[in-house]
Amino acid sequence: MLREALKNISPLKEEFFRLAQKRLDNLTKPPGSLGRLEEIAQRLVAITEKEMPSLGKKAIFTFSGDHGVADEGVSAYPREVTKQMVLNFLRGGAAINVLGRHAGADVAVVDIAVDADFEGMEGLIHKKVMRGTRNMAKGPAMTRDEALKCIETGITLAREWAGKGYRLFGTGDMGIANTTPSSAIAAVITKSPVGIVTGRGTGINGIGLQKKVKVIEEAIALNRPDPRDPIDVLAKVGGCEIGAIAGLCLGAAAEKVPVVVDGFISTAGALIAYGIDPRTGQYMFSAHRSQEPGHIIMLEHMNLKPILDLDMRLGEGTGSAIAMLVIEGALKIYKEMATFGEAGVTGETVEAGP
Amino acid sequence: MLREALKNISPLKEEFFRLAQKRLDNLTKPPGSLGRLEEIAQRLVAITEKEMPSLGKKAIFTFSGDHGVADEGVSAYPREVTKQMVLNFLRGGAAINVLGRHAGADVAVVDIAVDADFEGMEGLIHKKVMRGTRNMAKGPAMTRDEALKCIETGITLAREWAGKGYRLFGTGDMGIANTTPSSAIAAVITKSPVGIVTGRGTGINGIGLQKKVKVIEEAIALNRPDPRDPIDVLAKVGGCEIGAIAGLCLGAAAEKVPVVVDGFISTAGALIAYGIDPRTGQYMFSAHRSQEPGHIIMLEHMNLKPILDLDMRLGEGTGSAIAMLVIEGALKIYKEMATFGEAGVTGETVEAGP
Repeated sequence: MLREALKNISPLKEEFFRLAQKRLDNLTKPPGSLGRLEEIAQRLVAITEKEMPSLGKKAIFTFSGDHGVADEGVSAYPREVTKQMVLNFLRGGAAINVLGRHAGADVAVVDIAVDADFEGMEGLIHKKVMRGTRNMAKGPAMTRDEALKCIETGITLAREWAGKGYRLFGTGDMGIANTTPSSAIAAVITKSPVGIVTGRGTGINGIGLQKKVKVIEEAIALNRPDPRDPIDVLAKVGGCEIGAIAGLCLGAAAEKVPVVVDGFISTAGALIAYGIDPRTGQYMFSAHRSQEPGHIIMLEHMNLKPILDLDMRLGEGTGSAIAMLVIEGALKIYKEMATFGEAGVTGETVEAGP
Repeated sequence: MLREALKNISPLKEEFFRLAQKRLDNLTKPPGSLGRLEEIAQRLVAITEKEMPSLGKKAIFTFSGDHGVADEGVSAYPREVTKQMVLNFLRGGAAINVLGRHAGADVAVVDIAVDADFEGMEGLIHKKVMRGTRNMAKGPAMTRDEALKCIETGITLAREWAGKGYRLFGTGDMGIANTTPSSAIAAVITKSPVGIVTGRGTGINGIGLQKKVKVIEEAIALNRPDPRDPIDVLAKVGGCEIGAIAGLCLGAAAEKVPVVVDGFISTAGALIAYGIDPRTGQYMFSAHRSQEPGHIIMLEHMNLKPILDLDMRLGEGTGSAIAMLVIEGALKIYKEMATFGEAGVTGETVEAGP
């Protein structure tokens, strides 16, 4: 399935960028004066290969999973909060529910690896691969097969939801301790020191941060993930929701659906997808710059520039929701503004002489 | 009227910040993890003095006016574009129409000083003070009375629209050559060299930029605006739409209505309001960081931090529209999220030991 998705990913075509540029320069505004909104619109045209794309329905996927490494005391919250937050998502009381409604996006809550029995629970997308990863401080978090299963879950969801008419995806995550595997992935793939890509997550103190760095360093030393093999990295020091996010990014690219990558954890997933096929990066929009220090390092590795910088560090897909509003605004500018000709506005500039 | 507005402006009260903080810390998320969204929500509570504020209807005021200094060739576009763009606003084809619709904000197009006869035209708010300012390269742009009239127009509109149930204002501008008076105001009030606060506006070339700097320097030397008297600065080297924006900011503060300040030109207006009464700054949200180099200098002078940074430089209120979506999202987070108690989520953090 992964191989099939990869076969369907193609690089964006220059002709669509030119087509979009031509229209943008003809709209009643000075050329380039809408800055990144114009860039976003151009890329939407190139991704969808449509002169007048429509974003149709929007969905944010909040992949939820637990982490064995939580046993090492790397998070400020106890492990059962993952389960409690999933229930909160289903009742509509979490930040992602509020911002999803605000952005007009459906929130798809996916159980990929929560350490709880949700059998038969309505409103939840049941894709459990395991009840939490194993503790990477003691051995690999997952087998290679489990990691592939997580990726394939993301690919499948991308295909299914594209089929249902969704034309803009957002990623999101929930999982107590999941900044720890995300920092591990960032360190291994961008070849950065663990101390530089590791932050306070939900808010641990200085001593907690030192311990977290040590746990990650030791897990990398113990499991020896191969930086040239992103699936090996995901399996040994990653997490299930991170794998599913990677799959969603791969599937989105295969379906020519733009995908808004949320913050730190989502970007670790995007980085796995990018490692598997760098062309996926062309289909991604980075929602925002997280407060986690490793985030910008991963974004630079993929040559992505965040749309927002609001000091957020919650995850769930909250940044994706707000960024979707900017992306939709950009598309509306491109589609709905009058051209100079239509509006009878003088489009030629007068250049000041010496 | 200005005096009356000033009498009604009060500094924000600490108790409302505390009230909002208490609720924010009780919502199902790590404390502070929504970053600037939390700051914004807090300030909305403090501005409105309501525990559960509502933003009601939203309006963006696009003040339009011409500038005598356009005769000096400081803009990339001919003067008649101001009039043409006003007609474009009324037909709904401009960027602000598109983004206003996207943000659910009404766009109020105000003729404050367009050099055109719009008498009786429907859909336009008729508040013409003059048919364009006089050329500040030859003498003062306005008399003190004309400047006051512009400010009072903004105050009146703020009062009227607050009375109609609008609970969030945005500023906007249209006026060929209006980055020139805005740079002049920035230079005089922040005591910065003209060369540092002057940019390419709608896109003049290097020679044009040199000429623009020289025109501004000479206008300041000729008219000698008094930096301690913002109304004098507005009259001598300002513009009518800038004065009306200053008035809207003053009126918004008097009505306890938050006001979203768009880009460079709007911020020059906000700076005049701030100079008249610095307490107005507490009622302002800076929408975005413009590409104009003088913008951030004015924002720092008022201790305002832009919400967005999207390389925009169009004006009209386009930045305000997008920022309104972020502000509304912040308020919804504050009002609609479940508390730890409601959701049955463990709120206490566990601190990692040594």
